[in-house]
Amino acid sequence: MEKRARVLIDCDDAKGLVYKISKVFYDRDLNIDNNREFVDKEHNRFFMRTVVTGLFEIDELLSALQAVAPKDAHIRVIIPKDKKIVILATKESHALGDILIRHASGELGAEIECVIANHDTLRELVERFDIPFFHIPAENLNREEHEAKVMECIDQHDFDYMVLAKYMRILTPTFVKAYPQQIINIHHSFLPAFIGANPYKQAFERGVKIIGATAHFVTDDLDEGPIIAQDVIPVNHRLSWKDMQRAGRDGEKIVLSRALALVLHDRVFVNGNKTVIF
Amino acid sequence: MEKRARVLIDCDDAKGLVYKISKVFYDRDLNIDNNREFVDKEHNRFFMRTVVTGLFEIDELLSALQAVAPKDAHIRVIIPKDKKIVILATKESHALGDILIRHASGELGAEIECVIANHDTLRELVERFDIPFFHIPAENLNREEHEAKVMECIDQHDFDYMVLAKYMRILTPTFVKAYPQQIINIHHSFLPAFIGANPYKQAFERGVKIIGATAHFVTDDLDEGPIIAQDVIPVNHRLSWKDMQRAGRDGEKIVLSRALALVLHDRVFVNGNKTVIF
Amino acid sequence: MEKRARVLIDCDDAKGLVYKISKVFYDRDLNIDNNREFVDKEHNRFFMRTVVTGLFEIDELLSALQAVAPKDAHIRVIIPKDKKIVILATKESHALGDILIRHASGELGAEIECVIANHDTLRELVERFDIPFFHIPAENLNREEHEAKVMECIDQHDFDYMVLAKYMRILTPTFVKAYPQQIINIHHSFLPAFIGANPYKQAFERGVKIIGATAHFVTDDLDEGPIIAQDVIPVNHRLSWKDMQRAGRDGEKIVLSRALALVLHDRVFVNGNKTVIF
Amino acid sequence: MEKRARVLIDCDDAKGLVYKISKVFYDRDLNIDNNREFVDKEHNRFFMRTVVTGLFEIDELLSALQAVAPKDAHIRVIIPKDKKIVILATKESHALGDILIRHASGELGAEIECVIANHDTLRELVERFDIPFFHIPAENLNREEHEAKVMECIDQHDFDYMVLAKYMRILTPTFVKAYPQQIINIHHSFLPAFIGANPYKQAFERGVKIIGATAHFVTDDLDEGPIIAQDVIPVNHRLSWKDMQRAGRDGEKIVLSRALALVLHDRVFVNGNKTVIF
Repeated sequence: MEKRARVLIDCDDAKGLVYKISKVFYDRDLNIDNNREFVDKEHNRFFMRTVVTGLFEIDELLSALQAVAPKDAHIRVIIPKDKKIVILATKESHALGDILIRHASGELGAEIECVIANHDTLRELVERFDIPFFHIPAENLNREEHEAKVMECIDQHDFDYMVLAKYMRILTPTFVKAYPQQIINIHHSFLPAFIGANPYKQAFERGVKIIGATAHFVTDDLDEGPIIAQDVIPVNHRLSWKDMQRAGRDGEKIVLSRALALVLHDRVFVNGNKTVIF
Repeated sequence: MEKRARVLIDCDDAKGLVYKISKVFYDRDLNIDNNREFVDKEHNRFFMRTVVTGLFEIDELLSALQAVAPKDAHIRVIIPKDKKIVILATKESHALGDILIRHASGELGAEIECVIANHDTLRELVERFDIPFFHIPAENLNREEHEAKVMECIDQHDFDYMVLAKYMRILTPTFVKAYPQQIINIHHSFLPAFIGANPYKQAFERGVKIIGATAHFVTDDLDEGPIIAQDVIPVNHRLSWKDMQRAGRDGEKIVLSRALALVLHDRVFVNGNKTVIF
Repeated sequence: MEKRARVLIDCDDAKGLVYKISKVFYDRDLNIDNNREFVDKEHNRFFMRTVVTGLFEIDELLSALQAVAPKDAHIRVIIPKDKKIVILATKESHALGDILIRHASGELGAEIECVIANHDTLRELVERFDIPFFHIPAENLNREEHEAKVMECIDQHDFDYMVLAKYMRILTPTFVKAYPQQIINIHHSFLPAFIGANPYKQAFERGVKIIGATAHFVTDDLDEGPIIAQDVIPVNHRLSWKDMQRAGRDGEKIVLSRALALVLHDRVFVNGNKTVIF
Repeated sequence: MEKRARVLIDCDDAKGLVYKISKVFYDRDLNIDNNREFVDKEHNRFFMRTVVTGLFEIDELLSALQAVAPKDAHIRVIIPKDKKIVILATKESHALGDILIRHASGELGAEIECVIANHDTLRELVERFDIPFFHIPAENLNREEHEAKVMECIDQHDFDYMVLAKYMRILTPTFVKAYPQQIINIHHSFLPAFIGANPYKQAFERGVKIIGATAHFVTDDLDEGPIIAQDVIPVNHRLSWKDMQRAGRDGEKIVLSRALALVLHDRVFVNGNKTVIF
């Protein structure tokens, strides 16, 4: 039966890669619905995302591609289907709510396995959508103890990505290392400006004329992971930092949802500390 | 007891208006927290929005202001409180959902009296939030008959504004006239481009590089009412019109919610077929 | 000797095109520096732009590509070098000035053969840059007579593209037909909004919150040709239409220069009444 | 004879200021063409810019305003006329060129007294416009020695503002202190991101999806002065840092020219390390 697959290839660049890869598709009589490539010349790295349709076996296609690609190649043949996510949140509802509404309409393209929060504030909202909500308070626990409880909860769920929808706690390297390239965070500033706590207050104090939001993969370095999407909104002297915070929320939720959509559609490659997005 | 009020004045321009109005505030020892004026020189029209705090009686303040303003002056002294809205929708959930999430968090600044839709699709979503949902199907009814039923339902509710959150039916002049300057619509294009049906398809066919959304007051002329807010997003040749529709939804919901916030905070004056926004 | 070429292919879509074309490059041991494709599924049309480096003869490469591409294929092998342009203008200097400054710094990537204007206003500016300026007044001439004189002047110059840098006269079909896909215009609105004369006045009267500019190829239909680039800037009720005009000028010049750069780098395909831009 | 003036008041906030100031205008039968106020509540500071027309003596009006304003008030009554500027540059022509073109068309609203550069590259361009150009090389001079020569040259000119149009040298505190709130710089990043040298390279290495430009007053702290205007442009993984630099130039020149226009129209108040812009 005819299938559709997203083929993602990430390897050292070499002459003839497009030819050799497209030959694999041609020899199997596959249609190329969509094809994008990029070569990072600085690091001599090749990225390709092709959507093919036709009659093929995933394993056979994968083997054929591996045979023509350089040894280090990271190749994926992905049949599009809803992925699974878990969401971590704290008290604010805008980013979480945007994801819940997209989920309810079927637009999200992912199943939400559960929402975990360090406060109980969002329970009512989440349970309105019949999604499991777990409150894991951090009171009287040190960071490691709290995270251990969060990880215990997370690990009872099968998921592809973890979304930090304004989860206002810093993660330890142990936690981050357990989910490499799987954790997506929204930071409420136009990174690298205003790293750390209360970026709106920092922006207000600096007197900037534009504020922003940044969705990125989480790595060990706080607010330093590969950026997936950013957006900005104009501000002026009339806004207090609370006004900026309010104004910034729309940007935050839209940027996070846009980044999530890119990731769920397998459009994002991590390239060192950057991303390649098709 | 100390009160806070928004004073809105809209009248023919005349020399000394700022002086005379600020004297009224000064004589009553009121604080001006915020003050903005604008003179439309083309139509010789004066607009002023002042937020005052202090000890005053609304009626006495209103009389004093009327005494110094030109005869035609439209003056309002508004004590900030949640307004009431009714929402009309059809099948799409993004604009409605954005308002529901803001309502649930208390950020909206309005009570949602009910949601009325010509399809039953959105019932589940609305009822998750314990908000009354009325399905008024249009099948087998002509436009006037359907509208009569909608108006009957609406008129059982007390409301300040009616929000068309992607309500995909054209309103008759009779309907529009019944709610002057009360109906806020989101049109899924950058008006005046792509008036009428299926603007994303029109945009796709024209090959534009930017699409947009427009929130406006509804008047007799379809898509021609005073514009409150607009926003745009870049597109390119790779997007089908369905892709544009998907991409445009974020703009639509954000622009509608932004326009609604402006209206609910009494920041919008209608000035002929335009708006003055403070 | 090693050469670098831009290969542009535009043809009906067919299975295996990427494979067959990349095989031509592979067989000649050419490096692909950059490669982008797009299939317009609505019209079953394939577009590809590849930058290759290596040892090749233009004619031989062209023949080889023609041999593997569908019969209707439009194939170009272009060695990057400065193109030639002529500029038509009227009285306003901002769009013209932006091009002159880029030309003076060597950033433009084109030789300016001459500037032709229907007023003498811009002579001083143009001659400061030692570029030939021709004043062809329209007084006492009908449209055809004036255009005949302009064409006579133009046709004494060798050029790849004609840039209308705020040339405020409507061109006849005869003129337009003489230079197909060669004339680039900047229209001072966010097309298709505000087609025709004085778009800023139209925008002011409509009360829009965003204005824009559009660079497009000129076709027979006024302001209806394929759009190359657009941009917008926010406005508000405080701007008169003269203010909008002033504010809009920056957008106009940047959009025109950006479109011109795309065209000069062979990044623009015309696809019916749209563009594909790589 | 009827005059027009911009009245700028900057003082500690106090009850009744708008009333008292507007009374001064009313008592003299002046028309208010335009009026904007702002109160910085954090610092209890009042800002007002009013454009008045009518019969008045500047000194008498100033005295009357001083009589009603708090003791610390900084009050200016400015008759609009072209201001004078000097420009410092290095090698890049885009920001300088943009100002030259605006000057040539009469749009700038300022006289350019001279251009001073630490390289001779821009001489030809500047002299095309019959504007004095001074080359003050920095070779074999330490920072203080070079600056002393620049100051010597500057101080032979009468000017209101000094514009750093991509002047690629760091200024000493001595220099900065000599021209308080008079030096306007364009920094080629979205401050406070990428302070210091080569911000495009920094942006490229961080993998941001948006780059920007910032015009600000120069203070002792490098890139830390009050921000006047900012703008951004989207980028992606396909741009090298040289591409970002090229793409960023348009933003730089537009932001600098926009900031300069605001300053020349007396629309900018410095408020601590921020600006209030009307």
